Amino acid sequence: MALSGGVGGAKLALGLYRVLPANSLSVIANPGDDFEHLGLTIWPDFDTLLYTLSGLAHPEQGWGRAGETGTFMAALKALGGEDWFFLGDGDLATHVERTRRLRAGQRPAEIARAVVSRLGIAAALLPASDQPVRTEVLTAQGPLAFQHYFVRERCRPSVTGFRFQGAEAATPSPEVLDALTMPGLAAIVICPSNPFISVDPMLAIPGFRAALRRSGAPIVAVSPIVGGQAIKGPTAKMLGELGQESSPVAIARHYGDLLTGIVLDEQDAPLAPSVAQLGIAVACLPTIMRSLAERECLAAGVLAFARCLPAGLR
Amino acid sequence: MALSGGVGGAKLALGLYRVLPANSLSVIANPGDDFEHLGLTIWPDFDTLLYTLSGLAHPEQGWGRAGETGTFMAALKALGGEDWFFLGDGDLATHVERTRRLRAGQRPAEIARAVVSRLGIAAALLPASDQPVRTEVLTAQGPLAFQHYFVRERCRPSVTGFRFQGAEAATPSPEVLDALTMPGLAAIVICPSNPFISVDPMLAIPGFRAALRRSGAPIVAVSPIVGGQAIKGPTAKMLGELGQESSPVAIARHYGDLLTGIVLDEQDAPLAPSVAQLGIAVACLPTIMRSLAERECLAAGVLAFARCLPAGLR
Repeated sequence: MALSGGVGGAKLALGLYRVLPANSLSVIANPGDDFEHLGLTIWPDFDTLLYTLSGLAHPEQGWGRAGETGTFMAALKALGGEDWFFLGDGDLATHVERTRRLRAGQRPAEIARAVVSRLGIAAALLPASDQPVRTEVLTAQGPLAFQHYFVRERCRPSVTGFRFQGAEAATPSPEVLDALTMPGLAAIVICPSNPFISVDPMLAIPGFRAALRRSGAPIVAVSPIVGGQAIKGPTAKMLGELGQESSPVAIARHYGDLLTGIVLDEQDAPLAPSVAQLGIAVACLPTIMRSLAERECLAAGVLAFARCLPAGLR
Repeated sequence: MALSGGVGGAKLALGLYRVLPANSLSVIANPGDDFEHLGLTIWPDFDTLLYTLSGLAHPEQGWGRAGETGTFMAALKALGGEDWFFLGDGDLATHVERTRRLRAGQRPAEIARAVVSRLGIAAALLPASDQPVRTEVLTAQGPLAFQHYFVRERCRPSVTGFRFQGAEAATPSPEVLDALTMPGLAAIVICPSNPFISVDPMLAIPGFRAALRRSGAPIVAVSPIVGGQAIKGPTAKMLGELGQESSPVAIARHYGDLLTGIVLDEQDAPLAPSVAQLGIAVACLPTIMRSLAERECLAAGVLAFARCLPAGLR
């Protein structure tokens, strides 16, 4: 099982998908980026996983679809519509179809299963909850809905904290709970995603952490910070603004006793003792995934590391 | 003022737009084709007028937009979505933006005004009513929602009649009534559209016919039947299935005493006496509009004919 945000997480999720037997991987997608826009319900991280695992993803940019066109956005702009969030023409089909199904009363997990099956993916992509959980970024300029912070304001405002709207009233979906009680679950991998905005929205759902622990599988994070920087996105900037060091040690400390182990990049090997001091097992692997082979290699390494770890509590 | 359906009507509406002074034309769009699809509110005839008058229309096909792409439909089909009604990527922006505005509580007339202004059209395009009025085609196989009959079933079922759902509870929009009481209204032109499915949905709205008459302007139809055939669409087929002759005489009889005059195509000049017998003034003009010049020429001819007609009742 994997917990994943968007681009960085999806790279490792693809690696896991390719090294594991068919139909043995479940990936829980971060709901915190989800939002309503132009009357459509958009699940950016889920869709990045969907496109990545189905082979529809744009090969370079990491989000969106290969062969995408922008006719809709150009026409919307001409009509004076909101154009700060780019929606490709093909991507739009996903949002329109999902919104239609949601309005027809289908549960997020059912909708996810239908599109995953239709696109021929031999893995489960699971929305974390049937209820919406959405990140609000608290900034020096006041609270901002996640996509307003991330896309419209391009992460410029200084971050003071986060709120996960809807989390308190949410529960892990039945499909998530089922996947966590599947016999033989070998590992729970927290992908190299931003802990604050890509993983915490899931962990904020009451019962989610407990269900992870109860699974008995080792819980292994892959650090999204390499050499003091994030490969992509505002993780390092956020750590700085929150007064924390931009280092895998801060990531390990952030997840704390949820983790059985953590994978650092090779270049951060000197930090391994500081992490080990926290009581978390450490492995150092090449974590920068430029090619498909590197994704598979890291996935295999993470799984091998997890197999060496003691099972969690049951 | 003009009353128009889609492609054929929009050709004449464009001619009228080009020969009349700026901001003196109002076109009332047939609401009968409107439908909900994929969670979007689609106004096909309104949009054909919108694209035609703004210059965005596809130059050959008469509906849709120039430079349109089909990425959305291909992606939707891959997801197993409903693909029987083609929605181009650029066209989709119109539906998404309109649906968003409707959900935000804007009236159809307000939405129409906003997009018409945004696209630089110096004419009013008026939805017939703020309430939905939708054609249901009664067929030998039972009743069909208009787009199911027209697009999905390609007009194959034999027609026995029509129902205009919502018409009884609808009223002409305030903007339509305002346009009909504008001082100096020179003519009301019923464009060469299908009388059953493109004009009757408007006439079925209680108070609509009376408002047309009360305007005092001559009401002139242009026959959509030329040489026994419709230029486009199922008008001739419907006339036959309803036991009527496929001729401009049937069109004149259909509108009856609503009309002050009717324009037949030159080639139907021999039928002029039969029409005149109905007490309707007749002009014969070249009504087949292949080029922009022919649209303007017919528009000028229709307006000249209307000027010769006695004003209606006031």
